This record gives sequence, C-alpha cells and structure tokens, in this order.
Amino acid sequence: MSRTSAANTPRQLHLNVNILHSGFVPSAWRLDDADPRAFVDVAHYVRVAQLAERAKFDAVFLADNAAIVDQIDFRPITALEPTILLASIAAATTHIGVIGTASTSYNEPYNIARRFATLDHVSGGRAGWNVVTTADLPSARNFGHDTVPDHAQRYARAAEFTEVVKALWDSWDDDAFVGDKQGGRFIDVTKVRPVAHEGRFFKVQGPLNLPRSPQGHPVLVQAGASGDGRDLAARHAEAVFSASQSFEESVAYRRDLHVRAAGYGRAHGVQVLAGLTTIIGATEAEALKRRDELVDLIPWRYSLARLAGTLGITPDQLDLDARLPENLALPNGGNGNHTFFHATLAQARRGGYTVRELIRALAGGGGHRVIVGTPEQIADDIEHWFKGEAVDGFNLMPDALPDGLAAFVDDVVPILQRRGLFRTEYAGRTLRSHLGLEPPTRVDVTV
Amino acid sequence: MSRTSAANTPRQLHLNVNILHSGFVPSAWRLDDADPRAFVDVAHYVRVAQLAERAKFDAVFLADNAAIVDQIDFRPITALEPTILLASIAAATTHIGVIGTASTSYNEPYNIARRFATLDHVSGGRAGWNVVTTADLPSARNFGHDTVPDHAQRYARAAEFTEVVKALWDSWDDDAFVGDKQGGRFIDVTKVRPVAHEGRFFKVQGPLNLPRSPQGHPVLVQAGASGDGRDLAARHAEAVFSASQSFEESVAYRRDLHVRAAGYGRAHGVQVLAGLTTIIGATEAEALKRRDELVDLIPWRYSLARLAGTLGITPDQLDLDARLPENLALPNGGNGNHTFFHATLAQARRGGYTVRELIRALAGGGGHRVIVGTPEQIADDIEHWFKGEAVDGFNLMPDALPDGLAAFVDDVVPILQRRGLFRTEYAGRTLRSHLGLEPPTRVDVTV
Repeated sequence: MSRTSAANTPRQLHLNVNILHSGFVPSAWRLDDADPRAFVDVAHYVRVAQLAERAKFDAVFLADNAAIVDQIDFRPITALEPTILLASIAAATTHIGVIGTASTSYNEPYNIARRFATLDHVSGGRAGWNVVTTADLPSARNFGHDTVPDHAQRYARAAEFTEVVKALWDSWDDDAFVGDKQGGRFIDVTKVRPVAHEGRFFKVQGPLNLPRSPQGHPVLVQAGASGDGRDLAARHAEAVFSASQSFEESVAYRRDLHVRAAGYGRAHGVQVLAGLTTIIGATEAEALKRRDELVDLIPWRYSLARLAGTLGITPDQLDLDARLPENLALPNGGNGNHTFFHATLAQARRGGYTVRELIRALAGGGGHRVIVGTPEQIADDIEHWFKGEAVDGFNLMPDALPDGLAAFVDDVVPILQRRGLFRTEYAGRTLRSHLGLEPPTRVDVTV
Repeated sequence: MSRTSAANTPRQLHLNVNILHSGFVPSAWRLDDADPRAFVDVAHYVRVAQLAERAKFDAVFLADNAAIVDQIDFRPITALEPTILLASIAAATTHIGVIGTASTSYNEPYNIARRFATLDHVSGGRAGWNVVTTADLPSARNFGHDTVPDHAQRYARAAEFTEVVKALWDSWDDDAFVGDKQGGRFIDVTKVRPVAHEGRFFKVQGPLNLPRSPQGHPVLVQAGASGDGRDLAARHAEAVFSASQSFEESVAYRRDLHVRAAGYGRAHGVQVLAGLTTIIGATEAEALKRRDELVDLIPWRYSLARLAGTLGITPDQLDLDARLPENLALPNGGNGNHTFFHATLAQARRGGYTVRELIRALAGGGGHRVIVGTPEQIADDIEHWFKGEAVDGFNLMPDALPDGLAAFVDDVVPILQRRGLFRTEYAGRTLRSHLGLEPPTRVDVTV
C-alpha cells in the first residue's frame, strides 16, 4: 500500500445506502405512499438502488439475519437473502457497489468465499462482504445450538473465517486463465494453489473452484464496536459501518481504528462510514412534523420492547416518563451486541432524555444517529463530520424508502456536490475504485 | 394431489437446458466461435437463457461442485455459484424456470431453504432446487473432512435435510402477510410457526425469516440413480434428471420411480427428464463430422483420465484399442457416483466398443446419452422416447453453447411444435406451471 498516493489524493466523501426494506423507521411501511409488501419485492430494491446510482453513491448495502429477530406482527424484517438480491440489483445497475452481510457464525468459509467472488464476477467488480458474527439466540437455534457462542469465541471464529476466505480468494493468480484455443491450454495450473488451512475452527484444502474475481478481493466491511470487533476491523476491514451518536465519539472511534490498523501495518486502508438516519423537510418544522408522525405510527409497546431488547432488560423495567434504569449491563452477560447498547446509552445520557423522549430522538430506532432537518442542515452536518475527520462517509438509513432517499438524492446531494464534497460522476467501475481503496494485499500462503 | 386432473391433461414434453458453461463436450471452448472466458461471464449465461426462453423451454439448469473436480489445465469447470447466477438470469428473463444445484452434504438446511425461497421471490415463482449429495474427496477436504462420508449416511442426511427445508418453507401460511396500514398489523403471527425439528443430523427451531414464496415450495429436483437416490427422488422430487443410455433402461427407470413414488402416496408427481447431448448437422454426415472434430480437439490423456475417474480406476488400466477391463466395481468401494458409472458401462457393453470408440460415442463425456444427427432425426428420437413413456422430457446438454442450443432452438423445436409435442407459448408464469405440477403438499408440522 502506497502512503504517498493516499496522502496526495484529497479525501472524498463516501455515501452508501442501507436498503432496510421499507426504511429505517419501523412504521415506514404505514406511510400513504409506501407499499407494505416492499420488503419481499425485488422491484423495490432495484428502484432504490437505481436512485442511489443516479446520485453516484458508492454502494447499496443489505443487512441480514438468520432468524426472525424483531416483532413481525408490527413491522417488516430483513427477509430476502442478500447475495441473491444483490445479484438482481447488479443486473439492473452498472456502477454502484453491492455490499451484503453474511455471518461467520453459521456458514462455511468455502461457501462464503465462493458466493462473494461470484457476486464480484457477475457485477463486474462491485461486490463487498460485511463480515458479522451472530449474537442472537433465535439464530443459534436455527443452526443446532441451544445457546449463543460467547463473544470471544464468535470473534475468534470470525477472524479465522476471514483469513480462510482471503486465502481462498488468493488461491488463483490474476493471470491463471490462459484460454489458448490453438494450444488447448485452458488454465495455467501452476498459478492455482491449495490453501491447506488447518486452524482452530476450520480445515480447508482449497483452491477455490473459481478464478480470481475482478476486484481480487471483494471489499471487506465490518461493523464491530467491541474491542474484538474493532480488532477484526483493524486487521481486515476496508470499510467500517460505525454507530456513533456524537461527533467526538466518532472522532475517537476513527482514531482508535487507525491506531489499531497501523498496528497491523494498515495505515490508510479503513474507511469509516457512520450510520445516519435522515428525516428531511423543506423547513425544520416540517421535518420534525414528519419525524413525529412516523414515531406516532409506532405502537409504544413495540418501541419499549425494542429498546428493552437493545438494553438486555424486560419492557416492564422501562417507564415512558422516567429516565433509563441505572447500572445497565451488556445483554447476555456481556455476550450481546455491543454497538447498539453503547450508542443508545450515550444518546440517552447526552440528551438527558426520558424513555419517551429517547424513543422519539431515536425515531423508534435501535441506536443509530438520526438527524431531522432541511437539506441545508443535513448537508452542514455531513460536511462538519467529514471535514472534522469524524468519518469518511455515511451509511445512510433513510427514514422511509424510496421517498426518504429520493429527498436526499434530489435535495441534499446537489448541495454536497456544489460544495465539492461529493462526486458528480463515477471515476471507475469497481467498488474498490469508488471507495478509493488500493488493490488487495495478497495473503502469503504457506503450503 | 388430484389424479383426475392429471389423467385428463395430455402429457406435455418438457425441455430444460443445462448451461454447462461452454457446452457438454470438453473441447467446446476451442471452437472458432467460442469465447473461452464464457464460463465466468454472466452475459454468456444470460444469452443462453434468453435463447431457451425464446423457444419456451421449461427451465435452465446450473450444476455445481464444491471443489475443482476436473482437469482445469484443459477445460472449463462449474465455477460461479448457481443461485447467484440464476438471480442474474431471472433478472434478464420473464418466464423460464431457474433450477440450481446445492449440496446437502456441505450446507445448512436453514440457509438453503432461505436461498431457494429468495430465488423464488426474486424470480416471481420460477425457482427449482436440484438436491444433491457430494461424493468427491476434494469437496470433502474443503469442508473439514479427510474422507467422503459413506453413501448411506450422505443420503440419510439428504433426506432429513430435504424434510427440514420443506418444513421451513411451510412455516409461513400463504396468507400470513396482512400489511394493514390503518390497523398497524403487518404479519398475522398465528400463521407463522416454528418447525422445532430435532433429528439425527439437524436441530432447527424455525420459522424461516421469509414469507412463503410464490410457488410455496420451489420445485424439488433430484438426480440419484442408486437405490437410496431413487428413494429420495420418490419421496421428494418433482422432477428427476436421469442418465439412461437406452430407451429400455429409461422406461424401466421411470416405471421404478413411479412405483417407489406411489409407495409414498405420490402417483403423478415426478417428471423424468433424461440427460441428452445433441450434436446437430444439416445432414447426418455433417453432424458426425462435427462430433469427430470436437472429439479430436480433446487430448486423449484427458479423456482417458476422465473415463478412468468415472470407473474408479487409474488411466493406465485403460487401453485405447481394447475393451474396458472386466469386473469393474463402483468407485470408492461403492461410495461414489452411481449414475455415471452405470451409464458408462451400459454404453460400452451395448456398443461392444473399444475404449477409443467409447470415448467417441460419449463425445468425450461423462456418461450422458449423445445423439448425433439432423434436426429430423433428433426430433424423431425425442418423440420416440416421449411417446414410449421412457421420459417426460429432456435435460439438454448441447455440445457447445450457445451455438449447439441455437441449432436446437432454430431447427428442432419447430419440428416438435409442428408435431404437437411442445408448447408454442407459456401457459403460466411459474416453473411449477410449466412442469404441470400440482401445488406442493404442505408438510404436517407437529410442534
């Protein structure tokens, strides 16, 4: 990795949209213009992706779960499997990146290496893999477990899993394909090698049964906030989906990640994209009105249950008109999702909120930052965070889809472009190019 | 399942094309018009699928492996992961079915249930799953094993795997989705149930985190020739990819499958589609010339190694100008692939072939039937097999793609249509409709 080239290139803002079915706010499907069936409608996802591509976004992102982990009586969930849905999106777009979540807890590295390399092939070099571990009990019970593996073990498995996947991606040289019709030579087999991995969790011989993909490695994304999560990100991630509620926290998080990455010899390789929900109005009052209407469409029992779940307590421990209980501890005895636990506590503390006010400030959400305002206000906020080096960009989670994204694309993006913060054309065709990433470092394989 | 409706409908021929990268003959990539890179080019697969859809084929099929199991120095292999590639194909077509292989040996039922249900959603009800077990050592070694699990255990796992997948597909009622904006009711949770499966191989709580797909169940396809394989097909398969070399064998195979299926209360539920490679010429002499040119482009060392692999021996046990050795036994001590072992032996015996003649008759192939002739001759053969109840249709494996399929579509399909054997328009939009299958029988779940 060349530090000189990274230092000479002006920093560029990166924008990614999380196509969270009907939108980030749990009641988004109840809006007049919304199609409640959008969460299982491929045309909906394609429409959102095309909108993002029109605005020259870096990528679309699809989160995932391996169980029903929310209250489906009231709201849509992550349902369609991301890599397949991203292939549908790739077929209907030409430039925008396609990033999907896959869990290292309940998959095999060979299958995951193959699926993301395939997605990279069919999209012409636009694939990214969001590496997650899975912390919830319903998922564990869909894969033969009665309990959730502990946090340290999940991350140890994730680290080894990621290394095996990278080694498999490196098992073919870029120029292994020959295709010489006259000589009858198809592949140069001296350029295809086993990985012969034997570790604590996996034993994988390789090589992959698929030539190296256009990007070499699909872009690796991570989202961990815990020590183990940050360490995994520092070692492997090229982009991080973070969940900071305040500018200062985000600056500190990004700095910490850079220090950790430098420890692995990776000085300029991690783009921090903070989760950001936008609720946009022509005036601030209009935006607040939209926020309140959306929140009022969420039953309080739902919001209480969701908040209690994030905090690892039961809903009856929450009083709408009181502050959060004292002495909250990480869910599952420190074994749960760190990111949203900490982000939610921080938000409550900073605002001095009652539970009711907190739920309103979170727009019924699960811990990501919500900004409510005019396009100018939102552009100002983005510029402040970006120029202040709190982030390299944002993982946008519009309140409702597609219209929350349409408002951002039509009204916020042109301001960012006028201010020279965001591209007006794609400079390349790959996700790696959009994110300004260097080619992947080849893993040294010793057989 | 209604026997009356099945009895009253005239039998309809079914045509499926196996998009085996550059084509069935290992040297197909060396033809003048071929693009050697086609095996990793999504545009190639889309082009072939669109050609098949123009001819009103029932489906396209993508086989799969979980390791390099052929000689890549000489020929292309199955590389891109099928479900992702089929999503790309579905996005570029409107009616044709999309069937892909996934192994029960190295996957989890929850993930496979979800992937094929997702493919069914994004294709609007066109998905099919070809259920296979994986018998080769290189694949085993990519998933932590030093040996191939024995045949009986592979099939026991496959049977339980398939049952869990079906139960997961049935874990949502068709009408579980409500989407009532006014009432704020999204899903009727009384219509979504756990599967609570605990078996020999799997423990899966469910429900699936995905509403029931358009077909209810994606179409289940199987290809086993062994007793265990036929039994699995009889219990679950709605279409079978068979590999009979002779009319009589195929009649007997189909009858046996019907008897076994009847034993499971399934009288009319299995369509037998025989593998068929076509080499087409304007005259028989031209077709034979094309066959010989293709075979002559395959190095003998490659064909010998491939034949030896099918027979579970080493190449030095084969003499090009002698017959096959006596007393051949199933590869891996009865633990290998039954289908191609038996089909190859039968072909050698029937023709009284030397090894060289056998390889020519198989067009360098691995055991599927090859017919070489004019469009009329090929249509006659298809009509004979279909009317004689040897098959319900064919899984076509054209010698080379796309041109071998283009010849079939342009010159053979119109003959079949004139003879009233094959549809001239799609009657429905789902794969289940094309194949004339009844809606799936719901699995009884006892919690």
